[in-house]
Amino acid sequence: SAQVLYNFTAEPGNNELSVREGETLTVLSQTVGRGWIEVQNSSGRTGLVPEGYLQVSSGESSFHVLLEPVHVSTVTELLQDRRINPSRIVAAEITDFTAAFLKSCQSAPKVLSPSAVDDEDGEWDDDWDDQSVGGYHGNNQLDGEGGASGQSTHGPSMKISLNKFPFSKGPSPEVFLLAKPPADSRDRLPVYMGEVGPVWLYPSSSLDCVIADPKKESKLYGLKSFIEYQLTPSTTNRPVNHRYKHFDWLYERLLEKFGSALPIPPLPDKQVTGRFEEDFIRMRMEHLQAWMSRMCRHPVVSQSDVFQLFLTYRDEKEWKAGKRRTERDEAVGPMIFTLIESEAAELDAAQVEQRCEQYSQFTKSMDDGVRELLNVGHAHWKRCTGPLPKEYKRIGRAFRNLSNVFNSSKYPGEETLTNAMTVAGETYEEIAVIVAQQPQKDLHFLLETNSEYKGLLSCFPEIIAVHKAAVEKVKEADRLVSAGKINNNDRKWMNQRISCMSYSLQAEMNHFHSNRIYDYNRVMQLYLEQQVTFYQQIADKLRAALSQFTTL
Amino acid sequence: SAQVLYNFTAEPGNNELSVREGETLTVLSQTVGRGWIEVQNSSGRTGLVPEGYLQVSSGESSFHVLLEPVHVSTVTELLQDRRINPSRIVAAEITDFTAAFLKSCQSAPKVLSPSAVDDEDGEWDDDWDDQSVGGYHGNNQLDGEGGASGQSTHGPSMKISLNKFPFSKGPSPEVFLLAKPPADSRDRLPVYMGEVGPVWLYPSSSLDCVIADPKKESKLYGLKSFIEYQLTPSTTNRPVNHRYKHFDWLYERLLEKFGSALPIPPLPDKQVTGRFEEDFIRMRMEHLQAWMSRMCRHPVVSQSDVFQLFLTYRDEKEWKAGKRRTERDEAVGPMIFTLIESEAAELDAAQVEQRCEQYSQFTKSMDDGVRELLNVGHAHWKRCTGPLPKEYKRIGRAFRNLSNVFNSSKYPGEETLTNAMTVAGETYEEIAVIVAQQPQKDLHFLLETNSEYKGLLSCFPEIIAVHKAAVEKVKEADRLVSAGKINNNDRKWMNQRISCMSYSLQAEMNHFHSNRIYDYNRVMQLYLEQQVTFYQQIADKLRAALSQFTTL
Repeated sequence: SAQVLYNFTAEPGNNELSVREGETLTVLSQTVGRGWIEVQNSSGRTGLVPEGYLQVSSGESSFHVLLEPVHVSTVTELLQDRRINPSRIVAAEITDFTAAFLKSCQSAPKVLSPSAVDDEDGEWDDDWDDQSVGGYHGNNQLDGEGGASGQSTHGPSMKISLNKFPFSKGPSPEVFLLAKPPADSRDRLPVYMGEVGPVWLYPSSSLDCVIADPKKESKLYGLKSFIEYQLTPSTTNRPVNHRYKHFDWLYERLLEKFGSALPIPPLPDKQVTGRFEEDFIRMRMEHLQAWMSRMCRHPVVSQSDVFQLFLTYRDEKEWKAGKRRTERDEAVGPMIFTLIESEAAELDAAQVEQRCEQYSQFTKSMDDGVRELLNVGHAHWKRCTGPLPKEYKRIGRAFRNLSNVFNSSKYPGEETLTNAMTVAGETYEEIAVIVAQQPQKDLHFLLETNSEYKGLLSCFPEIIAVHKAAVEKVKEADRLVSAGKINNNDRKWMNQRISCMSYSLQAEMNHFHSNRIYDYNRVMQLYLEQQVTFYQQIADKLRAALSQFTTL
Repeated sequence: SAQVLYNFTAEPGNNELSVREGETLTVLSQTVGRGWIEVQNSSGRTGLVPEGYLQVSSGESSFHVLLEPVHVSTVTELLQDRRINPSRIVAAEITDFTAAFLKSCQSAPKVLSPSAVDDEDGEWDDDWDDQSVGGYHGNNQLDGEGGASGQSTHGPSMKISLNKFPFSKGPSPEVFLLAKPPADSRDRLPVYMGEVGPVWLYPSSSLDCVIADPKKESKLYGLKSFIEYQLTPSTTNRPVNHRYKHFDWLYERLLEKFGSALPIPPLPDKQVTGRFEEDFIRMRMEHLQAWMSRMCRHPVVSQSDVFQLFLTYRDEKEWKAGKRRTERDEAVGPMIFTLIESEAAELDAAQVEQRCEQYSQFTKSMDDGVRELLNVGHAHWKRCTGPLPKEYKRIGRAFRNLSNVFNSSKYPGEETLTNAMTVAGETYEEIAVIVAQQPQKDLHFLLETNSEYKGLLSCFPEIIAVHKAAVEKVKEADRLVSAGKINNNDRKWMNQRISCMSYSLQAEMNHFHSNRIYDYNRVMQLYLEQQVTFYQQIADKLRAALSQFTTL
């Protein structure tokens, strides 16, 4: 049985069940899909409830089924979760540093590889896929004093933590510091010395992709609905369709493969309520577009097999085959560093450490700066859509009321003043509307961009932790040689590898910086342009109202 | 003995005593002056405390001394209070309608006339005179979130009710409906038929007066300090000096004389704390100036003996003689209506009643409108000086912080963006200051004008009540004739008099309307002009900041 923790209102036509806080339910199935539990209530009605809304009695928990070999799909789901990286699970269990470990580590992921058990598309078990509202706000309507900002849709009772698993342990630097590079040189990630220092290899033509035309689709005879988006890459100009769950699959792959070296920003949040509403779909599409554009701009990500597959698959067969292939990829997690090649001079560990410290400092400071801007932006959004337009409206109404009173005086020659005061009142009422709509025109993009950067910046601690761990390991190299755990060749190999890692970090930071300068230059200009227009528009309107009065 | 109700901090050099809530004091004298009590505290220190801060044990109250004939000055003070009009006190005691009553009524004020007992200047007993801060606000500084608006200085513990006496009873229409006009025709108040209807006789040249140069003066060997203002009337161009208490004396005289027929707006509030501070003096002077200008603009008030005395007395002797003379004036209160002369056709009571109703409606509606505007204005002031500039400052700081972080990136070609973002940040910090200072430039005058009109409008209920009472009395005329209480001539006289009253009200309303149209036209233009400048200035500043960014 399960206890209901929060009220949940079923989305009609989606086989869900409305439940009330405190209600006791019978659990019918916990394996219907990630994040959902099939239950029966005391009236005998059955349906799905998000698992975050329920407290399932012990013996029935999701964690429990993990241990039972029959629930293969649940194991798969676990492995698909972004935080559980097969190589890391295994690495965390190993304490000794041996070649034997390295071998087992490299082969271990294959044993548990998702693709081995997940050759069904498994749509049914991913019901949360079209339920997100992401970014910093989801409500641009003028509402009450308290709930005017977009943050209101992020109320605690609305949000379900869909990632219940603890964070992975730190990366194991042994794995990638001594691993050999792959035979296939096409997979290599070269770092060149550009004008600004180390840079990635940028493709000759830039890739972009337009997301449009969200359509509500259903499957399982209408039992389940979802939104399908149309993506058109600039390279092929041939549209492909994807659901949110496919984006999430791509995100998981990119995170798994590149997350130790590159920031893979999170997708818009998964969320249960409010899906299928037009505003939410529009907002999610905007966020997916921003995410895709950023991924397209990344030279490493955009040229990766998995990303190309996502944008250019020709049919279901090619998509499924590609999925299986990419899920079998071995060069994931910190193993990515085995692919990095630099033509530049080898750096020593001290230099690597210094770079690492420098970027750590920068990303931390920028994260603080971005959060500060988001905080004040949210507060300002709240004020601009809540109390401020209300006040302008009241001022306008007060002028109009006085004008009406004056009009009732029956005193001759009153018309010019009363007409002018009515215009002034109406002008302030118009200003109220302009003020309330303004954040959507300027603050919106400022907050979106900063929200995106907050996501990017949230990835750096892990990237930097990987580097730090490697630095620590390299520091031990002498001791490891003395203890006979590694030989001098291994040590040389480690030094070369950590030098590559530093070039990788520098290339990534340079990529980040150049994008940052572009993005902030763009968004600041857009913000100021819109602000100028806003204030100019108000000044012009007031000037017109002023001209209605007779000069004294 | 007396209990201290609220903390009071003595103004240095003014013979005051600081006391704390809950303290018990010995009362030394309650007759030192209106509003002040001389006390001794438990440490033996003596000084003055405002009477509103104390709870004096029974047997010692101010009301009590009123009954003791020895305390003549206190009776005088009572009579000087604006709400106690000698003619009304007596009228309220009379219930029968006889010629004898009329006679006694007309002579009664003389018995208690203030000038009869108050031929000393009595500076000592009017210590509250320079303590006021009037109008709707007294603090234009940017301060905390809560106390940003001017209303903060009106905190309950700060304000002392200096008018403890109940409102007078209604006027007695018998007094003025049957009274004979004065012999001296120079005192008559003619009403003419102008283009807009009945109008007062306007003087050929307009009067104005400039108040300037407030100086702190002391008397009684520096024991008491006060502020003296210099008034220069446009007619004589010869400055005269007056303290607030003189303004208050003038106000009392004008209210007594004209209050039943014309709105005599209140002076800025009397207040105990914060006097002698520069802002308060400046603010009070501004309010006194507004009050004097309005009085100067009134054709009846500005040409009255008492007003002319106030502005044109040549020396102390002339001032004191004039004071005594005007305090002896018999044509005060509703008796003013005996002075009104109209050349127009006689109106009947029904028409008078209709006019009265119409103006009652108008002034009530306008009062509502003015209060609404004041309310929203106060709220807007609060927002514009409190949270809004704080938010702009935070936005500016957030931009500048990000700019600083970007500057630390060591990435080449960062300068243009960081410089531009610093300018943008500084611009928003400047906007914060502009926003916070703006209310003083526009809202201030809008609120001042409406505050003045609130004061004017507060006088109309009494003026209208006088008319209503007269209308009721005239309705009884037939019955009074039948009962032999008045004769047919008296009835005719009453009809003629109430017709004059209606013309007087119409003349006053027309004066009010024409001033209102002028004032609101002026203040609305000023407000909108300043608002245009404000928004234009911000737009221009932001445009300049925008130009710092490189075009993409």
